[in-house]
This record gives sequence, C-alpha cells and structure tokens, in this order.
Amino acid sequence: MALEQSLAALSLATVSSPDALATKTLIFKPKTAKNAVPVPVLVFALASTETPSKVIASAAGVKEPRLARDDLIQEFFSTSSKEVSIANLNASLAGKIKLLVDSAVLAAEDSILELSTELAKAQLPAKTLVDFINSTGIEVTSVDFAAEASAAPAAAPTQKAEVAKKDKSAGKIEDAKLIGITVDKVKDFSSWYSQIVTKGEMLDYYDVSGCYILRPNSYFVWEEIQNWFNIEIKKLGVQNSYFPMFVSQRVLEKEKDHIEGFAPEVAWVTRAGSSELEEHIAIRPTSETVMYPYYAKWIRSHRDLPLRLNQWNSVVRWEFKHPQPFLRTREFLWQEGHTAHLSQEGAMEEVDQILELYKRIYEELLAVPVIKGKKTENEKFAGAAYTTTCEGFIAATGRGIQGATSHHLGTNFSKMFNISVENPDGPEGSRVHAFQNSWGLSTRSLGVMIMTHSDNKGLVLPPRVAQTQVTIVPVGLTAKTTKEEREAINSGAKSVEQSLRDAGLRVIADYRDNYSPGWKFADAELKGVPLRVEFGPKDLAAGRVTAVRRDNSKKYEVGLTELATRIPEILEEMQVEMLENARADFDKHRIVVDEWKDFVPTLNAKNVILSPWCGVPECEDDIKDSSATKDDGEEAEQDERAPSMGAKSLCIPNDQPTLKEGQKCVRCDKPAIQYCMFGRSY
Amino acid sequence: MALEQSLAALSLATVSSPDALATKTLIFKPKTAKNAVPVPVLVFALASTETPSKVIASAAGVKEPRLARDDLIQEFFSTSSKEVSIANLNASLAGKIKLLVDSAVLAAEDSILELSTELAKAQLPAKTLVDFINSTGIEVTSVDFAAEASAAPAAAPTQKAEVAKKDKSAGKIEDAKLIGITVDKVKDFSSWYSQIVTKGEMLDYYDVSGCYILRPNSYFVWEEIQNWFNIEIKKLGVQNSYFPMFVSQRVLEKEKDHIEGFAPEVAWVTRAGSSELEEHIAIRPTSETVMYPYYAKWIRSHRDLPLRLNQWNSVVRWEFKHPQPFLRTREFLWQEGHTAHLSQEGAMEEVDQILELYKRIYEELLAVPVIKGKKTENEKFAGAAYTTTCEGFIAATGRGIQGATSHHLGTNFSKMFNISVENPDGPEGSRVHAFQNSWGLSTRSLGVMIMTHSDNKGLVLPPRVAQTQVTIVPVGLTAKTTKEEREAINSGAKSVEQSLRDAGLRVIADYRDNYSPGWKFADAELKGVPLRVEFGPKDLAAGRVTAVRRDNSKKYEVGLTELATRIPEILEEMQVEMLENARADFDKHRIVVDEWKDFVPTLNAKNVILSPWCGVPECEDDIKDSSATKDDGEEAEQDERAPSMGAKSLCIPNDQPTLKEGQKCVRCDKPAIQYCMFGRSY
Repeated sequence: MALEQSLAALSLATVSSPDALATKTLIFKPKTAKNAVPVPVLVFALASTETPSKVIASAAGVKEPRLARDDLIQEFFSTSSKEVSIANLNASLAGKIKLLVDSAVLAAEDSILELSTELAKAQLPAKTLVDFINSTGIEVTSVDFAAEASAAPAAAPTQKAEVAKKDKSAGKIEDAKLIGITVDKVKDFSSWYSQIVTKGEMLDYYDVSGCYILRPNSYFVWEEIQNWFNIEIKKLGVQNSYFPMFVSQRVLEKEKDHIEGFAPEVAWVTRAGSSELEEHIAIRPTSETVMYPYYAKWIRSHRDLPLRLNQWNSVVRWEFKHPQPFLRTREFLWQEGHTAHLSQEGAMEEVDQILELYKRIYEELLAVPVIKGKKTENEKFAGAAYTTTCEGFIAATGRGIQGATSHHLGTNFSKMFNISVENPDGPEGSRVHAFQNSWGLSTRSLGVMIMTHSDNKGLVLPPRVAQTQVTIVPVGLTAKTTKEEREAINSGAKSVEQSLRDAGLRVIADYRDNYSPGWKFADAELKGVPLRVEFGPKDLAAGRVTAVRRDNSKKYEVGLTELATRIPEILEEMQVEMLENARADFDKHRIVVDEWKDFVPTLNAKNVILSPWCGVPECEDDIKDSSATKDDGEEAEQDERAPSMGAKSLCIPNDQPTLKEGQKCVRCDKPAIQYCMFGRSY
Repeated sequence: MALEQSLAALSLATVSSPDALATKTLIFKPKTAKNAVPVPVLVFALASTETPSKVIASAAGVKEPRLARDDLIQEFFSTSSKEVSIANLNASLAGKIKLLVDSAVLAAEDSILELSTELAKAQLPAKTLVDFINSTGIEVTSVDFAAEASAAPAAAPTQKAEVAKKDKSAGKIEDAKLIGITVDKVKDFSSWYSQIVTKGEMLDYYDVSGCYILRPNSYFVWEEIQNWFNIEIKKLGVQNSYFPMFVSQRVLEKEKDHIEGFAPEVAWVTRAGSSELEEHIAIRPTSETVMYPYYAKWIRSHRDLPLRLNQWNSVVRWEFKHPQPFLRTREFLWQEGHTAHLSQEGAMEEVDQILELYKRIYEELLAVPVIKGKKTENEKFAGAAYTTTCEGFIAATGRGIQGATSHHLGTNFSKMFNISVENPDGPEGSRVHAFQNSWGLSTRSLGVMIMTHSDNKGLVLPPRVAQTQVTIVPVGLTAKTTKEEREAINSGAKSVEQSLRDAGLRVIADYRDNYSPGWKFADAELKGVPLRVEFGPKDLAAGRVTAVRRDNSKKYEVGLTELATRIPEILEEMQVEMLENARADFDKHRIVVDEWKDFVPTLNAKNVILSPWCGVPECEDDIKDSSATKDDGEEAEQDERAPSMGAKSLCIPNDQPTLKEGQKCVRCDKPAIQYCMFGRSY
C-alpha cells in the first residue's frame, strides 16, 4: 500500500516542515535454518544514522542480516520494497518480526519526522509516530547505533557494503562546505539533484506534494525561453492567446483515444465555497478539447486557415508516481501551440519548423544537445497521427529524457470536433477537415539543463540564460590592508561593475564585509553564476581583473580597458563549450548495438542504444520486458540504485545509421526497417 | 431561487451551444379590482420577439397588463424580479397564473434555448423545457406575437414603452450592418458590450460559465502591459517567480480575516482521476497564504530584505454573481506582487511607486484616466493595513470601477506566518516582523479600456497596445479599372505596407478581392484598428495615402515620402487625444456634492460624487442604503436599466478639494474629515 494511503488508513495526520528529520525504514532477513519461518528485522532510524548490519545483528540477536527481497516484504508487510515504510506495521505482526528503533528517533520527540519510500515522502510529528508504533503492540528495541557502531568492530565488508548502499550517506562528499552540496553527483544522483535545485535556489519544495515553487533563479531562465520562442513563433504567424484552465467533463471526454491517456491523472473541481457543483469540472491536463470546439466555431472558410494559436499556461496532471522537481510535477508550466491547416503538407512542414525551434532552445539557450526523431506507435501522443520529439540524455544516470514534442494530429480531432471548411479546390459544396498540429515545451527543460551541467559544487548555468552572468568579488583585503587600499579596491570593483553593466551584462557585486571571499566564491558557485570576477590589490596594481569560469575553473586575466569586449567573449566561449562538452558526453554514450547479447550490458553501462529494429509494437514491448532488471534480490543488492525499468524506445532518429544489407531486428528475427534509439528514461 | 439552483432542483440538464436562441420571461400584473387577488400573466418568448402589451392583454383576456413589481413576483414565484424565469413555474401555480408562450418557442422544438435572468443565463434543449412546462399542468396559451402585433392597432404609448424597456431589442441600431454592432451603447450597454467584445474578437464565451477565452486581439494588449510593467518593476528590484496554483486547506485558512473574504468563492479539488484526495486542495484565489510560509523560511536575516517577488498567473474566484467579460470572471489573469521590507517607510514608499505604475498603465497604455486614492476601512483588502487604488469611470453607465490596488499589509501576515529577523538596530537578539505589501493588476483593465473607448461601430483600441495599428485597404477599383491600374494600386499599397512595417508599425493589408472596401472598413472598425490607410487611383496620382482615424473618423492626407514619420505621429496624436477625451468625460461626471439632497439625483444622473465625509464606517453603510433605488415598481418602470445598487465609497482621493471651515459630513451631523469619492460601481 502506498505511503499516503497507509497513513490515511491509520488516520495519521501529515504536516509539512522545512526542518523535518529524514528517516529510513530498512528490512533485513537474517540467516535462517532451511524451512524455518524467517523473522524479518525492521530497522527504523534517522537517515543520517549509520546502521551497520553488525550492530543490527547483535541488537536483534540474529545472524548475517541481509536486505530482504521483495517476496519476503510482500509476505509480511503486503507491499513492495519500493513502498514499504514504518507505516506498514500493524498489530498482526507482533511476535512475527523484530523491531529496532534508532534511539535518536525516540529522543527527537518534539520534532517532525519525514518518512520516505522510494516512491513517496510524508512528514508527521515524531510523537504521533511513536504513539502509533506503541499502539501496534510490537516490542520495540531501542538502539543507539552511534555508540554501538563505535563500540563494535568493523563489520565484514560485504555486510557493511549492503547497508551502505541502502544508507544514502554513502554518497557523502568528505570535505563538503556546510553551505555547499554534500552528496556526490555520481554516487547518489537523486539526493544530489534535490540539493542542487534547492541550494541553488532554483526551486523549493511545496507543501502540496508534487508541486514546487519556481524561484527567480529558475523562472528567469523560463522567461528567456519565452522571449526567444515568442519572437520565433510570431515570425511563423502564431499568435498568443489564453484559454480557460477548466474543462467540462462532457467536452473533456469527447475524444476517447486522447482522454484515455489522461483520465487517471485529471484533477477535478467538485465544490465551490460550500456548494457542490452540479457538473464536476476538470483542470486541463492539456488543451486540445478546451480549444477545438472554438476552432470549429471560428473557422468558417478556408480563408480562416491556417489558424495558429499558442498559449503559455500551467497544466495539471495528478501523477501518483514519485514526483521529481521540474521532471515530474503535478502542475507544470509550458507553452502549448495548436494550429489548423488546409493542407497536410503545410501542417507537416510546421511540425518540423517547431521541432527545430525546440532543438535550438535546448542547444542555443540551455547548451543541452538533443536528438531529433519520431516516436514509435507505442510512444506517440494519444490522438496524434505521429509525434516528433527532441530527446536528451542524462549522462550521470545513463537515462534518456524526452525534451519536447511536436505532434501532427492529422484529422483525428478535426473530425471529432467538426473543424471543416468548404474545399476551395474540390467540387461545389464539398468539405474538407482541417489538418491539425499541437506542440509543447515545458519547464522540464530546466531540469534537463540542471542535470546536464551542474556538479558537486552546485549549479552551472549557461551564460545566455543565467539571471546573474557575472559576480564581482573584491579579494585580498586583510587586517593589514590600509583604509586607502580598501577604498581603492572597492571603488575599483564598483567601476568594473559599472562597465560590465554598460556592456549589457547581468552583474552583481558582493561587497558584504561579513563574508570571506572564499565563502562568496562558494555561494556564487552554488547558484551557478557563470563567471566570477575577482579584483584585489594585485589586479589593482596590474590594471586588470581575474575572471574564473564556473564550468571548468579556467582563469583569465582581463585588462580593465578590454572588459566590455573580453568578458562577453569569455561568456560566449563558455556557452559554446558547455554545449560541446555535453554533446561529447551524449555521443560517447549513444552506442550502436546490432546484437541482443550486447543490449542489456550496454544499457547497464549507462548508455542509450541505437539498434536496428523491425518496428513492430509487440517487439518493442518484448525489448522493454527483456531489458528490465530481474528482481532476483542478489542483483538488487549489487547495485540498489540501478533503475530496474526496461529500455523504452526513445525515438527513431531523423539522422539514421545506414542499415546493413539484410540486417535483422536486434531482438526478433524480422528484418530491421530502421535504427531506433532505446534507453532507460525519465 | 437563482437560475442554476432552480434548474438543478428540476434536474433539467443544461447544455451549451453557440447557436442557442435567447429568450425572455416577462411577468405582468393586469389591472385588478381592489382587494381582488391578482392573476399574474407570465410571458415566455424569444428575446427577438416583440411582445406588445396590447397583444398580451387580448391573448390573456386581461386589462392593462403592466410589468409586475417585486412584491407580486415574490408572492407567486418566491424569487426576485432579478432572478425569476420560466424555471420558477411549478404545479402549485396551476390556475393561479396565466401562461402565454411565444409560438416561435414551441416551433423551435429541435433548438437550444437560453434562459436569462438579470443575474444568470443557462441553456437547455427546447424540448426539455416544453416537457417541463407541460409537466406543471399549467394551461399554456400559445401566442403568435408577430401575427397578432401586425393585426392589432398600435398599443397606447405608455404600455408599449413599458414592454419596450423590458425588451432588449429597444436598443437596436436601425441601419446596423450585419457584421457590425446592432445595439446602442447608451440605450443597452450590456448587450452592446457583449457584442463589442465578441464581434471585436477580444474574447469568446466559454462553455464553463464565468470563464472566457482571451483571443489574440485582447491577449496582445495584456502582453504589452506585461512587457511594460516587467521593465518597470525590475528597475525597482522585483523578481518574477511562480508559485503553485494549489493551496492546502490548513494553510489557506491560517489568516482568518483574510480568508473570510475569499472562503465563499474558493474552488476545491477533491478528486484526482478516480481517487478521492485525502486532503481537499484549494485553487488559489490570491497567493498570500501560498507564498508567505516560504518567505518565513527564506528570510533569515535583515540582509535578506527587502524580498520582492511578482508572478503572472491566473487565480480563481468562483463568484455566483452574474459574470461579465473581463470585469467579473471566475478565472482571471493578473500579476500579484508580494514584498517584505525591514522598514515600514520602505514598504509604504513601494506601495505608492506601484500605484503610480498602475496609473501609468491605465493612462499611458490604455488611455484610460484614473483617480489615485485610498480605500475606506469598509472597502480595504481583507488583511491589509490599508489599500490604495486606481479608480476608473465608465461614462456610459455612470459607474465607477476599481482599476488596480496596492496594499500595505503592515505586519498582519508576517506575525501570522512569523516572517521576522533579528533587529539590526535593536538590542542584541531582539526581533522585528517584516512589513509587507501585495499589489495586483488584472485583465479587468482590458474591460475598462474597451468600455471607455469603444462605440457603436465596434472596438476602439489605443494605438500603443493595438495588435494591428494600421490596416491598408486598396480603394477605387471598379469594373472599369484597367489591369494596369489595378496592378499599380495593389503594388503601390504593398510598398506603403512595407514602408510602414519598416517604420516599426504593426500593419496588415486587406487585398481580398471578394470583399468591398466598405465591408473591409466596417470589419477594421469592428476590430478597433486605430488607423485605416486607403490607397486608390486618386492617391496614386497624387503620390499620397488617405489615413482615417478610428476614434473620430478624422481624415489625413499623407505624402508617400513622409509615411514613416507622419503615420506614427498621427497614431501618437490619437493615443494622447483618446486619453484627453476620456479624462474630460470623467472630470465632467465627477461632481462635488456637499448636501445630501443633491446626492441621489446627482448619482442617478450617471455621475460619481465627491462629498465631504466623516469617515465613519456606519455612515458609509447608511449612504449606501439610502442611495439605493427603492424598489417601488414605478421607478423601476421609468428606467428599467438603472442599477438599483446604492453608492459605494470608491476611494478617498489623494488629490483633495479643500474642506470648508466646519464642513459637516454629507450624510450625518459629524464634522467631515475629508472628501470621499462615492458612486455606483462594478
């Protein structure tokens, strides 16, 4: 049972607090005699507490506790390892399991605890939780892991390893500054990412699960995307507009294939003030059904075509999967373009024009390389004739990610909504249905940008879209520095600031005297400021500044007289090199695999794959199943963080390797008709 | 009982159709012998059907039917004249009333009818309605008003007048072109307005009641406002951001005074897909309670102040009052700024800076004059220390309208949400709460602009914000025109088009040969294009164009060589004069009234009033009650469209007339402390 439901079932009220203490629930299976009923050990501890299995073993009085497999967890807690938590305890388990609770939890009586499963988080008062545990009547063994651990000799490596894997603190960066990122991008990507986005002040978590606050540092990037895209689509004759966020049930469900894809995620307004609404009203998950009845009304003649409207809005898809900042959120910002054309050629041309604009947003603004291609039948947009896409790649996890999609809807919707005109080229009175497109790019693009460039020091933002492009830090001021020197440095820094502003750059200068330059450097690095400009006594003497690039720490000495030209050049170099580096990464990890035996190993080595493929949907399903990590426990223990999902088809790239004569499908015996890009994905 | 409820109670399913036939429900009281129980006559007809009382009299067999007063309507239909409709019939009325139904309604069996009350509209199939009427068992008299009317001699003027007042077709413009506006702005403002916004393609009605579609013609104006305002607020150090549209019940209700103002209008999401949500989630009616918990988290030290965030979003207030395009809509677009300051002076200074920006948006962009002032205690924003406002005026109805508000919140919210920092100037460890502001401008501003400038030919848009500033129309092409001449005209028009584009103007040219120039003129006038540029044989010969201003039809002859300078000048003149004219109107109708006896008459003459006032809330309530039109029937008959509401205080203008020595309050005997602006309002 999922966390939210469990808590609801227990009617444990959740709360929300920025200071909640993270916790973990671990379930171990001790070594048990054949045929004996195993007695699992459930360990509930602060996430920050090390819980070596040696300590668990002695506290629980068992041998060689190992992380329990799914079947055991199902048997005892009737839920999966992904969803199990302390909230799955119940009276019927009394006597059947052993329960170890971190003494630090019991001591934290007045604080808020955060329960986590792989799929969800929830916060509630420690007291509520302890009362609940006691209410189950299960005997609680309090364990002071810290003390025990230091007392006990080092556990055997394998065991320690197991626990370490479950314990997120494994990814800890040894010398991390307090204000900085404390986990390693490669070792613990998901914790790293949530630190990056929050400490980099891109967003903050919100008390409605799955919703996030876009702070100025990220919203500015979105505004830059909006400004650029608006100019380009207006050149194509697209106009902006705004349609209501609400859609009536009757209308929403008009296009059956289409709504099937969204129905489970639609949020419904059923009440206003204290009165129940007669008809329940949906919040748009996308606006096809909102807009097209009016297209039918407005489009009276072929002269009204093409009709090209775009809107910048937010849509709501109430996913129950684990939400992730920018990538999977219940409300997200996007633009959605909806156009109607007289000729299919015209419509299809636009699909490609828009896809190219999306590629340019990723590559020219966000410095993120993408591959243009077409979705397979399985993966296309519900209701579309075909879907084109820009696919990105997150090197740190080896997973593909859909960047933006441009759909040709054919006449699927225009027939449903009767968007038709008299055929100017047909016989008197004959009518034709409009050919339609819809296309969208969302704030997910910001997540891809962040995951691609950022590092263990914090965010790395491409100069073109960074709210702050340059930060100026006076340096070399010590106790010995004379008042005159100090003034000279500060006023010098101020004039540097001014000349960079005059050059049209977005600059801040950090003159705070209660922070050391080192602290200011770390702060600017955390927030992803592309260029740091230092100005100290040496610089003053030499009539220059020292500039340091955020992405590679490369140092430049720039004369005060050439600031206005040289600094913008450096920023442009950085923008270009960030894209080149990311592209090199993507290219290195996009591997052609012709034979199935190499498929899964290549996938597990954090690559996406280009394989010859037959194009048959069933074969695609088979590839997905066959490439999923089998849940045989052992493997799960070897790398607990490896995504167990199978490889999805990401796209059929426009840019195709040439098929060999008589090349077979990578998976089945049918002949391959094209190369398809497969990968684990977000 | 309100229309929606009535229909719900009858479980009559409503529908939505752009082609619904408007209807009217009229209730008449025949001349009755003293003490005899009156038998009201209910007439249900298509809105377009003339229903002279002469015909009603003969069909119902009664004498001198006159529009019934509220008390009678209450007695028989237990609802007000504002809310009565055919849906208020019920079996208990059988034999007690007479029911006349327009034969055109009975003939319209397959169409959709729109029921209207003064407060609401609803659409349902004619068949459903007829079945319902029959189900009441009330005897129906079918009347062919058209035939009867032409047969019957003209009814006595007074009677005819009465009916005409109720019948919206009274405002009809005689020679209205089919594509144009068919009702008069002064005679029937509300029908005029809904034609203006729809035929001018500013918006379209949407099938969720109270929601509207902003079409490119209006959204462009909003984008111009956004672009201008963003530049100005960023100069003040405001940053844009985006907060979720959802807020949990617990958080929403944290600030009691504040939420009281919104609770009845909050839309609640209770279901996602097929699962009920554990906690119901509100859609923001405004974002104070959404944002401030995070202000408390982010603001750690006085160095984090001021924090100034703005967001462009939509909010939802599920009003049950009669919705009106732009002015009262259940979802609307706005910006909301929320700032926190260390010093109250700093906060209060910003309140004024923002209010001035709002004034400039109205006056410099929308050419709408506004009065800056302060709201009274009764009218201030819930939870604010004080509210400043820009108040506009709609001359056609003589009603004031709130343009935009800038609130100083004092520490009301910062105390509630504990937004506090250590006091840098206070003793060690002492803390101070932040002083906060919030300020907002919505798409309502577009409605004010439209109501102010537009006329019986259609929209009039101020040049600075018009999506299309100039339309070019080739003229003087007849059957006799030679091919060469035709080509010369068209290519000449094209080069005019190009040189105006090069001058940075937003231009369209209308070369369609299936429409006459006259039709094109009317079309451009309807859509509010500020300047029409005609180019015909005479112009070609004289090397000039003929430009015609939309607002006053003033003609200009502009040489081809001076297009790039002269046309922009003309547009600027127009922009300035539109504001001057609107200001003159406002000034003429803002009247100083020192004595109560002049108050209501001045109000009824479509003015707003400046009166010396004591500033006591109870006195304000008294003014409102005492200035409301008494519902004594007679008066209602004299001007059925006069708003019956009383005069609200609009604001205490910053710019005050000087109070006379010992001046008393206009209403009570207390001494006046200032002048206050009162008026009926939107």
